[in-house]
Amino acid sequence: MSALTNDQIEELITQSLEARNFSYSPYSKFRVGAALRTVDGKIYQGCNVENASYGGAICAERTAFVKAVSEGHLRFLAIAVSCDFNQYISPCGICRQFMNEFGKNLEIFFVNADRTYKRAVLADLLPYAFGPEDMPSK
Amino acid sequence: MSALTNDQIEELITQSLEARNFSYSPYSKFRVGAALRTVDGKIYQGCNVENASYGGAICAERTAFVKAVSEGHLRFLAIAVSCDFNQYISPCGICRQFMNEFGKNLEIFFVNADRTYKRAVLADLLPYAFGPEDMPSK
Amino acid sequence: MSALTNDQIEELITQSLEARNFSYSPYSKFRVGAALRTVDGKIYQGCNVENASYGGAICAERTAFVKAVSEGHLRFLAIAVSCDFNQYISPCGICRQFMNEFGKNLEIFFVNADRTYKRAVLADLLPYAFGPEDMPSK
Amino acid sequence: MSALTNDQIEELITQSLEARNFSYSPYSKFRVGAALRTVDGKIYQGCNVENASYGGAICAERTAFVKAVSEGHLRFLAIAVSCDFNQYISPCGICRQFMNEFGKNLEIFFVNADRTYKRAVLADLLPYAFGPEDMPSK
Ligand SMILES: [Zn+2]
Ligand SMILES: [Zn+2]
Ligand SMILES: [Zn+2]
Ligand SMILES: [Zn+2]
Repeated sequence: MSALTNDQIEELITQSLEARNFSYSPYSKFRVGAALRTVDGKIYQGCNVENASYGGAICAERTAFVKAVSEGHLRFLAIAVSCDFNQYISPCGICRQFMNEFGKNLEIFFVNADRTYKRAVLADLLPYAFGPEDMPSK
Repeated sequence: MSALTNDQIEELITQSLEARNFSYSPYSKFRVGAALRTVDGKIYQGCNVENASYGGAICAERTAFVKAVSEGHLRFLAIAVSCDFNQYISPCGICRQFMNEFGKNLEIFFVNADRTYKRAVLADLLPYAFGPEDMPSK
Repeated sequence: MSALTNDQIEELITQSLEARNFSYSPYSKFRVGAALRTVDGKIYQGCNVENASYGGAICAERTAFVKAVSEGHLRFLAIAVSCDFNQYISPCGICRQFMNEFGKNLEIFFVNADRTYKRAVLADLLPYAFGPEDMPSK
Repeated sequence: MSALTNDQIEELITQSLEARNFSYSPYSKFRVGAALRTVDGKIYQGCNVENASYGGAICAERTAFVKAVSEGHLRFLAIAVSCDFNQYISPCGICRQFMNEFGKNLEIFFVNADRTYKRAVLADLLPYAFGPEDMPSK
């Protein structure tokens, strides 16, 4: 069902778990890691970066996305997200909105700390999305 | 199916359309209005407020929510959202995330400029939401 | 030096302290209140409203601003900000950016829980601001 | 006056101008680039990444910061910011707030498209900053 092989999924999981290590989260103490795979097979890691003004926080998923975009990538296959617990962490609505800009077919893996996971597709996590096609100015 | 009567829905629609008038949207020129009904029947209107730094923008829905919260309301029944076009405008992911903090059963009306509408429930617009129950610090 | 009389300053302080009561801040447990005075003498109160996704948080100052804008106000004289401590709380950079959209001469009162305060002007808190005049699209 | 040599400043300027090329800014059509130098001499490039929901936009400066943080860097010397015009573009308040988390002595270069520039220090761009030391929970 996934466009990724099992080995590619396992690699993405490994990299999302590793990405937690650089999390800057002194306020929530909730470390999150993400790993984003581009259509051409490159992987970008991201972690959450918080701020004393809570609204300034940037999630792990968006960190991975801006890294990739700033190096010339605009098309993505899949992202894995993990934290330090077994709770199938899913992207927040802010990140879903951010991801939606780059395509609705993105596969998303909610990864437990023990590597078990659930799989979803962005279109199902943000139905009736408000996207680029809704903005007359584009 | 809705917890609101037809008259209450029509009133919410009227107020969301009226709320567009105070939209501050010089950058997108995309006026949005929202009207939020609390469980005890009070209605708060909101519009989008943009900023030269685009990331500073606050949507109409969140404007309505913070108005209500800052006056002591934490439980809501429904929100209507409208713009200047017939495009069934739906809340962005940022707003869905913001709303989710206050309950998953919120009814959401996507309102066209001609008053026709679609109805949805927040739980269906943000499945597998990352919410208060996911934060260990709470 | 202030455009406000002492009585007007005291009233703004009182309302900013009162506004803390509706703060929704289960994550930081840091209650903030704000009171914003329009040029025509109306006062809007705001509190911080947080979210499980920390980046979704909206500060007390921005709450007060969107309330006022959504009711037709675009010109402001002064804002007072307070928390539960004696620490001369000042607006975060996000809020300074948001305020800057509506004029650089805004007076800002950093209010202690014991009502003592410092006064500043937005232009001094956000020098070389990036504002509407910097955006070619406006 | 700068902790950087003239050659290092010129390199940072070059990289900030180059970083504009991957800007994703279909809404503002305002391309911004940034280059951030860590204390140990590594440079991270960032561009602005916008969203159909304007509030989802992430500026070039924050892109550069989260890239660096997600690769283990927490201490920085300087950042250069540029756009396509000669207007001494300065970081918005959101970015100043984000930067402040990592130290007040950061040098900031406002770079014109023709490579001329102004220099500032973060402490002067965000006086009375609300920072980590103001949050009791840290
Ligand atoms: Zn997120
Ligand atoms: Zn929204
Ligand atoms: Zn703030
Ligand atoms: Zn910025």
